[in-house]
Amino acid sequence: MTDELLVKDLGEHGLLERLQCFCPPDIVGDDGAILTIASQKSLVVTTDVLVDGVHFSDRTTSPFDVGWRAVAANLSDLAAMGAKPIGITVGLSLPGTKPVSWVESVYQGMSACLETYQTLLVGGDICRSTVVSLAITALGEVLPQRAICRHQARPGDAILITGLHGLSRGGLELLLNPDQADLLTREEQERLIKAHQRPRPRLDVLPYLREIPESIAIGEAMPLAIAGMDSSDGLADAIQQICQRSRVGAIIERSGIQVFSGLTKLVGNETAWSWVLNGGEDFELVLCLPQFYAIKLVEMLGNYAAIIGTITANTTIQIVDSSNLASPQLLTEFLNQDQGFQHF
Amino acid sequence: MTDELLVKDLGEHGLLERLQCFCPPDIVGDDGAILTIASQKSLVVTTDVLVDGVHFSDRTTSPFDVGWRAVAANLSDLAAMGAKPIGITVGLSLPGTKPVSWVESVYQGMSACLETYQTLLVGGDICRSTVVSLAITALGEVLPQRAICRHQARPGDAILITGLHGLSRGGLELLLNPDQADLLTREEQERLIKAHQRPRPRLDVLPYLREIPESIAIGEAMPLAIAGMDSSDGLADAIQQICQRSRVGAIIERSGIQVFSGLTKLVGNETAWSWVLNGGEDFELVLCLPQFYAIKLVEMLGNYAAIIGTITANTTIQIVDSSNLASPQLLTEFLNQDQGFQHF
Repeated sequence: MTDELLVKDLGEHGLLERLQCFCPPDIVGDDGAILTIASQKSLVVTTDVLVDGVHFSDRTTSPFDVGWRAVAANLSDLAAMGAKPIGITVGLSLPGTKPVSWVESVYQGMSACLETYQTLLVGGDICRSTVVSLAITALGEVLPQRAICRHQARPGDAILITGLHGLSRGGLELLLNPDQADLLTREEQERLIKAHQRPRPRLDVLPYLREIPESIAIGEAMPLAIAGMDSSDGLADAIQQICQRSRVGAIIERSGIQVFSGLTKLVGNETAWSWVLNGGEDFELVLCLPQFYAIKLVEMLGNYAAIIGTITANTTIQIVDSSNLASPQLLTEFLNQDQGFQHF
Repeated sequence: MTDELLVKDLGEHGLLERLQCFCPPDIVGDDGAILTIASQKSLVVTTDVLVDGVHFSDRTTSPFDVGWRAVAANLSDLAAMGAKPIGITVGLSLPGTKPVSWVESVYQGMSACLETYQTLLVGGDICRSTVVSLAITALGEVLPQRAICRHQARPGDAILITGLHGLSRGGLELLLNPDQADLLTREEQERLIKAHQRPRPRLDVLPYLREIPESIAIGEAMPLAIAGMDSSDGLADAIQQICQRSRVGAIIERSGIQVFSGLTKLVGNETAWSWVLNGGEDFELVLCLPQFYAIKLVEMLGNYAAIIGTITANTTIQIVDSSNLASPQLLTEFLNQDQGFQHF
């Protein structure tokens, strides 16, 4: 390990040269990158910062996965806006003592995720620091009338999730306590760990949304705006954010939210349910749209997509369990700030 | 100082709420911001990372100026591409022990610079870290045929600078050694310190560039592409980058490059000349365009804008001094990697 090439051996220009192979050569090399936006479309921009020891650690995440996850999180924000990715920029800070191979693996992970979603690394900056951090800005494009926003939910809308929740948190648990793997089948283990290490932004949902008409004719045509966001900060947080911003409430049907069998085996019913609601980083979409189209969308998506409740005019968010006739509970009872991800 | 409000007292959501007043309310609040690009225009994107102790320090830079400089550097990259700013995103990492007032001052500095250039803060992210860093991505728009790129310089083009160089480095010196201020007049002191603390991106140059025709008719019409970049990494570096990317050389006329009187008084002829070439962070533009239009542009700009040389077909970059008939020197003799800013 002593003769491993370090970032400080290459210097800034040397490292930049090595990393330029991850960028399209006709786009980089100037003070900025020039990109084309399709006519009629709006630009969508989103930024995330990931810091070593806060968002990732060598213990649970290889450098390849650090890169994959960082890009996936940003592409998920674009998916949550209904936007097709155009490109990302990366601001990397790191100590000179970091091995060059580590940096290249991060960029390989980013590239693999970008390629999977036909996107490009269009620019960036590298800088010396005492701690490794990645600041990613993702750019996408969307037809303005097709943008998914949080404030657009309307009473009567179905609340739809595009897949299972809690798996990423379960994967983290397995990585931190590998001895617990015996509780699970090989498939369950792999499913959880993959959910944590290689999350997939739900850009595959967007073509199905385009099949939904832009307006509904009831007497006169009314625009059909889909509300939503991704569940990166937890399913409960997403429901609450959408309701708050739309000034509505919701009734969530507990039996509509499936809990992955491996999760229950790993940590029991109660913790599994808590991770489903607050685990975070599952990067599924939470969408609100008229029941008729929600049902069609669930059919088209399959793979555990489900309708989990209904938007209401009053602003409380209740969780009901029609299977066991228990009293309704408030979502806020499950929204534990200590479990949710709060910086500082 | 002990009862000062710290970032960790507010928490992530509390800090985000305080910082949201710096963003237009209709743009933030979703997974991404939605922006409109003028039809026919291309998007320009550029990213910079600034780290405490590397790019700024409490000793020489107030938090307000940290914010101003960070935005100015990014807007300068847009100016260097010929692009009008649309907005910026900011990824801020910092320790929880940082005073909230410090963070707010940084955002006030950013806002002041953004307002000066009619631009918006359109999104961002905050995150806990052991070191303060700012990752800024700036977005702009440009007509594709009006984009300024480094590779477009042609033999015969005049090389034009939009203003004086070395002042930012001089200002830093004065801030580090305030006792040397006695060597200078009050005006000279202020000029140097302002150049360092509140650099101005040369977006004011763009309207003048639009008065230059898009093509020249010599027999048949030939597109008139302006080559250039900003001098953020030094004037010598800018000349070298443009020549390398355009596969051309240059003859630089030393007497065409004016040295600010305060610089010479502060550190003598030789160091002053070195700072003019390699000081960096002056954020002027270095442009290459046909002589006829360069002369017109210098007249329109005034304020020490000057033609400093000519692009040549062979790839050497010479500095000549026709005033004292000394032998030509190669620019590379002045390009000292230790003086230039190299990370790691």
